Amino acid sequence: MDKIDYTELARNEIDNKTKPLGALGQLEQIAIQLATIQQTLTPEVYPARVLVFGADHGISRQGVSAFPAEVTAQMMANFSNGGAAINVIANSVGASIKVIDVGVNADLSELKNIDQCKVKAGTEDFTQGPAMKPQECNKALEIGSDQAITAFKDGIKTLALGEMGIGNTTAAAALVCAFTNHQVEKIVGLGTGIDQQALKKKYAVVKAAIALHQQTFDQPKLLLAALGGLEIAALTGTILKAHEFNMIVVVDGFISTAAALTACQINPNVRGNLIFSHQSAEQGHKLALEFLNTRPILQLNLRLGEGTGAALALPIIHTAAKILADMATFEQAGVSGKES
Amino acid sequence: MDKIDYTELARNEIDNKTKPLGALGQLEQIAIQLATIQQTLTPEVYPARVLVFGADHGISRQGVSAFPAEVTAQMMANFSNGGAAINVIANSVGASIKVIDVGVNADLSELKNIDQCKVKAGTEDFTQGPAMKPQECNKALEIGSDQAITAFKDGIKTLALGEMGIGNTTAAAALVCAFTNHQVEKIVGLGTGIDQQALKKKYAVVKAAIALHQQTFDQPKLLLAALGGLEIAALTGTILKAHEFNMIVVVDGFISTAAALTACQINPNVRGNLIFSHQSAEQGHKLALEFLNTRPILQLNLRLGEGTGAALALPIIHTAAKILADMATFEQAGVSGKES
Repeated sequence: MDKIDYTELARNEIDNKTKPLGALGQLEQIAIQLATIQQTLTPEVYPARVLVFGADHGISRQGVSAFPAEVTAQMMANFSNGGAAINVIANSVGASIKVIDVGVNADLSELKNIDQCKVKAGTEDFTQGPAMKPQECNKALEIGSDQAITAFKDGIKTLALGEMGIGNTTAAAALVCAFTNHQVEKIVGLGTGIDQQALKKKYAVVKAAIALHQQTFDQPKLLLAALGGLEIAALTGTILKAHEFNMIVVVDGFISTAAALTACQINPNVRGNLIFSHQSAEQGHKLALEFLNTRPILQLNLRLGEGTGAALALPIIHTAAKILADMATFEQAGVSGKES
Repeated sequence: MDKIDYTELARNEIDNKTKPLGALGQLEQIAIQLATIQQTLTPEVYPARVLVFGADHGISRQGVSAFPAEVTAQMMANFSNGGAAINVIANSVGASIKVIDVGVNADLSELKNIDQCKVKAGTEDFTQGPAMKPQECNKALEIGSDQAITAFKDGIKTLALGEMGIGNTTAAAALVCAFTNHQVEKIVGLGTGIDQQALKKKYAVVKAAIALHQQTFDQPKLLLAALGGLEIAALTGTILKAHEFNMIVVVDGFISTAAALTACQINPNVRGNLIFSHQSAEQGHKLALEFLNTRPILQLNLRLGEGTGAALALPIIHTAAKILADMATFEQAGVSGKES
C-alpha cells in the first residue's frame, strides 16, 4: 500500500474550511506540519512536557557571562521549588515539566523534582581542549534520548525543549558558527546582558575555540563534544529520539536551536518534527533560524531560555491542531465560496 | 491618599523576578499594562469572552469583496453551530463566545446562540450618503456598550473583540484613512482576497466616501456614522464602556483596530485598556497600529477577523499576568544577581 500523503491531505482539508484561502496564515502551516508528523488529520499537541536540562560550562571561568556560574545551581533550586519563569509558564499553558541535572557543577542530590543524571560537573574550557570527551558527550546524548523514551511511554505528544547553564550562549554561538559558517561577530550576542568588554572576550574565546577544533567540523558528534555543552548534547539526544516516535518537538531559543542544528546535521530527517517557537533577542538566533529556513511562531524579544518561548507557543500549536480537526468545511456549514 | 502607581510597582516587581533584566521582553510590558488596568499586582485575564458582532454593508453592492454578501448571514449560522474558526479558537484557549447580530441583512431570529440586536439590515452605501443615521449609529454604540455591562456583571475580566461583515474591510479602510490621514492606496488592501479589478474599485469607493464626508472628520461619532458599520460602531461602544469597568480589551485585526481608533478619538483614555493582539496581513493594519504607537503580540499573517487573532493571544496575555503574580524574586529564591 502506498503511504498516505498527510501533508497534501491536510492542506486540502484546511483549504475547504469556512474561511478565505490561507486566511489563518502561519497557523495553517503549523497544522499541516502536525498532521504530517503524527500522520493523522486530528493531531494532538497535549499532553505536552517541558524538558529543562541544566549543566555548567568550563568556558564561564573566562568571564563571558553577566551572571556568576553559581547561578546555574541556584536556578536548579528555583526550578525545584517552582519559582522560575518556566515553572510559571508551563503551569499557565497546561504543560508538565521535568528538570534534569546533566552536568551542574554542584551537588543537587537533595533537590526534589530534579532528575539526577549528572555526567560530570560541567564541561572543560573549550579554548584549551574539547568541552567533553566523546564518551561523555555520548552519555549526555543518551540521557536526552532516555527522556524522549520516558515521555513517549507516558503518552506525551509534544516536548518543549529548555535549558539552564551559565555560559551556554557562548557554547551555542561556537556551534552555530561552526555549522553555519557565519562570522563570529554576527553570531555572538549579549546573552543575559554582558557589557562591551565581556562581549570582546566572548568573540575571542569563540574564535579561539573554532580555530582549535576545526578538524572536527565535518563530524557533527565530535564537533558537539568539542564545542557544545552537556545540556546541549542532551537536547540533541532528545530531538534525535523524539523523531523516531513521531513526537512534536518545540524548539526554544538560541541554545535549543543550536541543539536542533546539531541534530539536523546528525540526522536531517529530524527537521520535520521541529517547530521553532520564537525568535529571541540574541542576535545569532535570527541567522541560525534563517539557516534552518524557518520563521518561528513568536517574536516577543524573549532572551531567557529555560524553554520559556517553547512553552509559550504551545497553546498556539494546540490551536492549530484544533483548526484542522474541528472547523467546519464550506460544505458542512452551507457557506458560499469565493466569487470567481 | 495618593493614588498608587501600579505601573511603577509592577515594573519594580518584574525587575526583581529571577531572570535577567528585561529577559521576558514583550511579556513584561503586557504584565505591567495588566497591572495598570486592574490596579493590582495579581491581575487576572480569565474568565475571558470573545464578542463577535455581525453586520452587513451597503458598500458591498459595489463589488469590493471576494465573497458574496450572503456570506455574512451564512457565517452567523456557522458561528451559531460552532463550526467557524473563532468557535474553535475560543474553545481552544478557554474563552466563552457571544455572537451578536447588530445589522445582518437576513432574518437570523431562528438561530440559536445569537444575541438578536439588529439595528437595521445593514448600512447604506456610503458613497451615496452616510452609512448610518446618527441615531442608528448611537443605537449600535449602545448595543456594544451593553455587552460590556453584561460581561462585567458576569465577572468577565477580558473582552476579545471580533466581527463578521462582508465589505467591512472597505468601511474600516475609510475610517483609518480619515483618522490617520494616510493615502487610500496605502490603507486599502486585499481583504478576503480580491483581484486587481476589485482593488481599483475599492480605492475608488473609499476616495469617493472620503470626499463626500470630509465635513464630519473633526467629529468622531459623525465620522463613524458616515463611514463605519454597525458592527464597528458596536465594537467602539464596547471599548468605551469596558474602560469604565477597568476591563482588559484585546483588539483583533484591521476592523477591530478601526473601532479602537474611533474609540480613542472619542475618549483617549481608553487607549490604556487596549492590548493589540496581532498584525494582520491586511496592509493598512500595520499603519493603523503605528498610528496608535503599538506593536502587537502576534505576527502570524492572519487575515480572517472574527476575533481569531485576539482569542489566540489570550493564553499569552494570561501567561504575562502569571509571570507577575507567581514568579519568585531573587531574594525569595536565593539566586545571585548580575555581576557588576
